[in-house]
Amino acid sequence: MAQEIERKFLVRHEGWRENVSRLSHIVQAYLGAAPGLSIRLRIRDSQTAFLTVKSAEKGLSRSEFEYPIPVSDAEAMIALSGGPRLQKTRHDVVLGDLKWEVDVFEGVNAGLVLAEVELPSETHAVSLPDWIGEEVTGDPRFYNEHLAQKPADT
Amino acid sequence: MAQEIERKFLVRHEGWRENVSRLSHIVQAYLGAAPGLSIRLRIRDSQTAFLTVKSAEKGLSRSEFEYPIPVSDAEAMIALSGGPRLQKTRHDVVLGDLKWEVDVFEGVNAGLVLAEVELPSETHAVSLPDWIGEEVTGDPRFYNEHLAQKPADT
Repeated sequence: MAQEIERKFLVRHEGWRENVSRLSHIVQAYLGAAPGLSIRLRIRDSQTAFLTVKSAEKGLSRSEFEYPIPVSDAEAMIALSGGPRLQKTRHDVVLGDLKWEVDVFEGVNAGLVLAEVELPSETHAVSLPDWIGEEVTGDPRFYNEHLAQKPADT
Repeated sequence: MAQEIERKFLVRHEGWRENVSRLSHIVQAYLGAAPGLSIRLRIRDSQTAFLTVKSAEKGLSRSEFEYPIPVSDAEAMIALSGGPRLQKTRHDVVLGDLKWEVDVFEGVNAGLVLAEVELPSETHAVSLPDWIGEEVTGDPRFYNEHLAQKPADT
């Protein structure tokens, strides 16, 4: 089990594009869950796949259990679950000691861009770049699981 | 992915106990699921653990995706999901070319005994031992996921 501490923000403009160090395309689906848990299938660049169980958020932290699985398994389970529910391109943007992940959503969520930063502790200081907008950490409308079912009304 | 072909039966008497080749104690919980899929955590003899995704049954066959995970992960996820929902002792009983699994349930399902046999094909002949009772293959009341929520009314 890993502990994941993340903050999430809307994005004001495309200034982040100057610092992209890595791009990957993500397809994911959710398998539903017991209350307080989410179960995610993710395929990255059609080459790697993970099954991930996350606990409900308490503050900024979530417990995360992640297992690599064969891409063919992930494709078969995504099909059984009713098809991919969320597609996005993830851009890694490293600034100082922190890595931001800027997700540009596709399909029904086209137009939505979210930036996440993973922190070593809940109280770690974050220097916000000027392209960062409103913080949406903990806002259920911007949970990927929610976006997979219903586009965000931004 | 594996394909699982199983038939399930009630048990009439304890004659199966003469042929038990292996015993193991199973604790399991379900993480809910998308329609048509179940997601199971299982800990066997406190020593091995698996996360298993199964498709809905079509006839006798189900698709099964099973991943070994650390026991500590399984324990943490079972706790997050609200605790173990089903406990049973599994008895392997080998008869001819087939392995039967006789599950003696505990807790709210105490008194229930179910026998399952895994088959190499849907049409494989099964010689039924005299301790086998009514067939309950495909009867939702006897799905383990259902028993985890509501005891069977046998």
